[in-house]
Amino acid sequence: MMPYAVIRQKRDGGAVPRPLLDSFLQAFHHGDLPDYQMAAFLMAVWFRGLDATELDVLVDAIIDSGSRVDFGAEPGRRIDKHSTGGVGDKVSIVLAPLAAALGVQVPMMTGRGLGHSGGTVDKLSAIPGFRLDLPLDTFRDQVLDLGVAMISQTPEITPLDGRLYALRDVTATVDSIPLIASSIMSKKLASGIDGLVLDVKTGNGAFMTAEADALELARTMIGIGAQRDCDVVALVTAMDRPLGRAVGNALEVVEAIDLLRGEGPADVREVTVALTAEMLVLAAAAPDIEAGRAAAEAALDDGRALDRFRRLVEVQGGDPRVVDSPADTLPRAPVQRTVGAAAAGRVVAMDTRAIGEAAVALGAGRRHTDDLIDPRVGFELQVEPGTRLERGDPVAVIHAADHEVAARAEAALRDAITVGDDTPRPRPLISHRVTRTGVEEVGPGR
Amino acid sequence: MMPYAVIRQKRDGGAVPRPLLDSFLQAFHHGDLPDYQMAAFLMAVWFRGLDATELDVLVDAIIDSGSRVDFGAEPGRRIDKHSTGGVGDKVSIVLAPLAAALGVQVPMMTGRGLGHSGGTVDKLSAIPGFRLDLPLDTFRDQVLDLGVAMISQTPEITPLDGRLYALRDVTATVDSIPLIASSIMSKKLASGIDGLVLDVKTGNGAFMTAEADALELARTMIGIGAQRDCDVVALVTAMDRPLGRAVGNALEVVEAIDLLRGEGPADVREVTVALTAEMLVLAAAAPDIEAGRAAAEAALDDGRALDRFRRLVEVQGGDPRVVDSPADTLPRAPVQRTVGAAAAGRVVAMDTRAIGEAAVALGAGRRHTDDLIDPRVGFELQVEPGTRLERGDPVAVIHAADHEVAARAEAALRDAITVGDDTPRPRPLISHRVTRTGVEEVGPGR
Repeated sequence: MMPYAVIRQKRDGGAVPRPLLDSFLQAFHHGDLPDYQMAAFLMAVWFRGLDATELDVLVDAIIDSGSRVDFGAEPGRRIDKHSTGGVGDKVSIVLAPLAAALGVQVPMMTGRGLGHSGGTVDKLSAIPGFRLDLPLDTFRDQVLDLGVAMISQTPEITPLDGRLYALRDVTATVDSIPLIASSIMSKKLASGIDGLVLDVKTGNGAFMTAEADALELARTMIGIGAQRDCDVVALVTAMDRPLGRAVGNALEVVEAIDLLRGEGPADVREVTVALTAEMLVLAAAAPDIEAGRAAAEAALDDGRALDRFRRLVEVQGGDPRVVDSPADTLPRAPVQRTVGAAAAGRVVAMDTRAIGEAAVALGAGRRHTDDLIDPRVGFELQVEPGTRLERGDPVAVIHAADHEVAARAEAALRDAITVGDDTPRPRPLISHRVTRTGVEEVGPGR
Repeated sequence: MMPYAVIRQKRDGGAVPRPLLDSFLQAFHHGDLPDYQMAAFLMAVWFRGLDATELDVLVDAIIDSGSRVDFGAEPGRRIDKHSTGGVGDKVSIVLAPLAAALGVQVPMMTGRGLGHSGGTVDKLSAIPGFRLDLPLDTFRDQVLDLGVAMISQTPEITPLDGRLYALRDVTATVDSIPLIASSIMSKKLASGIDGLVLDVKTGNGAFMTAEADALELARTMIGIGAQRDCDVVALVTAMDRPLGRAVGNALEVVEAIDLLRGEGPADVREVTVALTAEMLVLAAAAPDIEAGRAAAEAALDDGRALDRFRRLVEVQGGDPRVVDSPADTLPRAPVQRTVGAAAAGRVVAMDTRAIGEAAVALGAGRRHTDDLIDPRVGFELQVEPGTRLERGDPVAVIHAADHEVAARAEAALRDAITVGDDTPRPRPLISHRVTRTGVEEVGPGR
């Protein structure tokens, strides 16, 4: 009757006592609890949430289900960054070597894209030869030697999370804040971090479309970290338009390398600098945020970040020519199709999820976990909310495998980008900063 | 993605469109939908309920999953009674032959007891030889010939309900009013009825402890019936004390036979007469409730109901001596232990669920579906709320397999029956009558 009691207590809104919830999770982990009881429990959690103790038990159980990366008494502070996902988010590719160049150790385990949202694993996989499946001890040693390693999530780490996620994915229980928070935090904690900077996206292309949910997720993750000596700071950033101009794996690597050269779109640079500054402060590598920002700007502009990226690519087996000649080294789609504005006007709004889904339809992402990715395809957007267009002005360049899918993508992009006379009301690029002590609104001046 | 969409729509409080819900249920019925997706859906239903269309689809799917008893154009009206279950509820054993004696055809498929609540199958099984596993065609012919047949639920009828119930039972989704209503109504409709009288128990020994839930269940079942030309009338009756004096299988058969002789406790007689009167009106065998009541009273008092019971026992293979000498024919427990009042006072309250659980502990019921029943054991209660007791007055006689379990039952009974100075506030025996047109409160005068 134990599993039944756990499900019923959660269903009725009560807190499941620590030993009971722990037994329930252990039984599932060891194959002694059927999927249907866990599915009912997860749905009850979707409705009722989890309190701090329940979250603690869940995070413990997930971490303890697999290996941990143990940095022991090695000097340095390990700080990671996590984004809740969106369209055009290539920040990690810039930020990880940038932070490492400034003295932070960055043990980054990244995910694959699913649905409308891209994943860093897929982007880095566009670089010929780049290996993301390093053994955990190699990962650890590289973090200590080079200051940065970027690998894909491995089944040795938090296998219980993998099983829970697979079940959530088919039972409509993915979008539960405590389940998302515990899944992310347990993976990050198992990778041996001392601190985490969280980029919580909000807007029509984010998983958290509502700002209140984004803040709640940030607070929940900060709370989990606080229980375990892991400082978590969150920035709430805009995902009511794609981040930067490039959407699609090879195209985003090109843009990331532009940024590492001190170039590239201002919005991605700003988000990258702001997140890196938080990492530097958490790592005690900068005395305050302003100093951290200045250091990050300098390392982007003077080539130190690019140099660290070059070493990262080399040590992980990637073709080093990508750094200096990305367009020649990365795979390129056979078809480029420019989308011109159908009428004059201003870009009022961008349906970011639809843009992400249009990229998936080109082959840049996955509808199902076993779909194959085409690294070549995607969009180079030429507009953002507020851009003034004359008829025929370029809105985007589509990179596609053939003309037929390019034509469909053009239709989807035209539907997703609203051009008109209304005043666009984009979200502030960075709207909130959340720490243990509370939420600050970030001024529009930044 | 179909199952996912169904789960998500229900989770979000929307109504699942008919074809989508039907596909979902068919897929489950045919083994093409895993239990974990159904479990998540059932939990979402627990939180969100089902609207009239969804209920209709569910009831159809359950009925269509198995055989139906088809009475075709046979004359007569088939009316059944269903009780939501309680402690000491032997009404069916009296009511079925009584209604048949008055011209109603009663095709009764009854259930086994589970938890604190008894089941008619177990009570009738106390009669040596009584067969409850008749084939469906025998069942049908007997209803047409004798006017009554009482059998246990068969897997040929509504097998989908059996699978759903088994899953609900282990996922804490049993106590959902739409799921309860659709489960009961689909079984009843598949048994070929034209009308149904529902006895919805409420109080501390009922599954619906709250009156509002009892009324909601009644309204939901009436609504399902109304979609299918099946008139449903519900009486809400008291289960804040056991019904009658006997609790336990053979003991309840003895009390039922007393009632069929025009004797027995007034409360069971009153509930039986009221429910039978409703059946007579639904069958057009009485012009109104008062006439139906009078007819029922007469048939209990003049032996017609007893005579029909005698023929029922004979035709279903039971030992016919049970009718005239029940105490000698039914199995008797080796130990009788009289519980005396510990102090003078008045019976203020009876924890009816605890009394039912004490009977289960004696062996009168099941904790698990595969537990064996001891037909001999149970209680003959001597008190009801309001009974004045002097110290040592008999409170109950315990019938037990041995002295040890009898002693434990005595302790449980003493805990369950509160004796004191407070004024007891028992529920009215019959508090509400619910029909398609609405809810009437039934006066305390009845």
